[in-house]
Amino acid sequence: MSSSALPESLERLVTELARLPGIGRRTAQRLAVHLVRADASQSQQLARALDAAREKLRRCERCFGFSEQSICAICTDPRRDATLVCVVEEPTDVLLVERMAEFHGLYHVLGGALSPIEGIDPEHLTIAQLVARIDTDHVTEVVVATNPTMSGEATASYIADVLRGRSRVTRPASGLPVGSDMEHADELTIGRAFSGRRDLA
Amino acid sequence: MSSSALPESLERLVTELARLPGIGRRTAQRLAVHLVRADASQSQQLARALDAAREKLRRCERCFGFSEQSICAICTDPRRDATLVCVVEEPTDVLLVERMAEFHGLYHVLGGALSPIEGIDPEHLTIAQLVARIDTDHVTEVVVATNPTMSGEATASYIADVLRGRSRVTRPASGLPVGSDMEHADELTIGRAFSGRRDLA
Repeated sequence: MSSSALPESLERLVTELARLPGIGRRTAQRLAVHLVRADASQSQQLARALDAAREKLRRCERCFGFSEQSICAICTDPRRDATLVCVVEEPTDVLLVERMAEFHGLYHVLGGALSPIEGIDPEHLTIAQLVARIDTDHVTEVVVATNPTMSGEATASYIADVLRGRSRVTRPASGLPVGSDMEHADELTIGRAFSGRRDLA
Repeated sequence: MSSSALPESLERLVTELARLPGIGRRTAQRLAVHLVRADASQSQQLARALDAAREKLRRCERCFGFSEQSICAICTDPRRDATLVCVVEEPTDVLLVERMAEFHGLYHVLGGALSPIEGIDPEHLTIAQLVARIDTDHVTEVVVATNPTMSGEATASYIADVLRGRSRVTRPASGLPVGSDMEHADELTIGRAFSGRRDLA
């Protein structure tokens, strides 16, 4: 086995790195070897960046996204449309929507999705804060961009029910990924793509 | 752009993580978020493991593989056949050969491959030390497991020339990867596979 060939300290570093999400043992080994060989300044810079981020990062008190201030840069940006709110599950989902650079409203991070099995009920998410924002901020449309998973869909339905009559509630289309092959899509996705078909002519 | 959406400290952590080999910006972002959210003990354990590995790891004075002692655990293992030496480019290649668990000889880490373009000449590698070992350790076979790349092949040829008459020098077969599709192999690999064909009946 490879583990016997690894000196103990390297093995421990590989084990720690392999605990990170999406990092398998092989990648962990490559990273460990790189970090051990890199000059001291590189690993120190990494350690310092991690310390700084852990110390400074907190949640925006309005949208619950990542922020270094009490209110985040997106929420305080006067060029953004405060009447349009995109609801996402996690702070990282904000980054995904921002990357597309087509959404100019604000965000609301739920902190997860409803999952009765895992004991995640509406009160564990920031749904009450969302309702409060809708009323005080005169929000006219809420785009519920929770994941197209069972719990994400359930969360979207729940939010639609709660906000009914208070604001327009929309959901991004599900369908075939752009640039993908129909062959590689599952039936559910193909079904969604067909039921959501648009007129071209 | 997504970068504008990232608080500065998180952006810096992502940038540092993205400098690691094989870690793209998306993975770096996922890792950064995980590290920032993980409880303090996890990121401290990672930092401690990195410090320990950087402090303790050195090169084996005999094979130049990773070691915590002056001579590594493989070189000092009496069950291993010291007359058989596998030559590899990097210390990490030792781990790859060990993983297959079929090689019971010792190793010799060259520290790279010959590359006149990059200015890597025989004296930059541990070839002189290899020659010395062959003679003092009564090595009977040297398996040159440098990579099947241009520089790896050139290094193997050079070593075969240097060791001619001193020891048997062999090279692992090149060919189609097990479990792969011929369709996905390049012509060079298929060519190698055919020229190295074995009799089945």
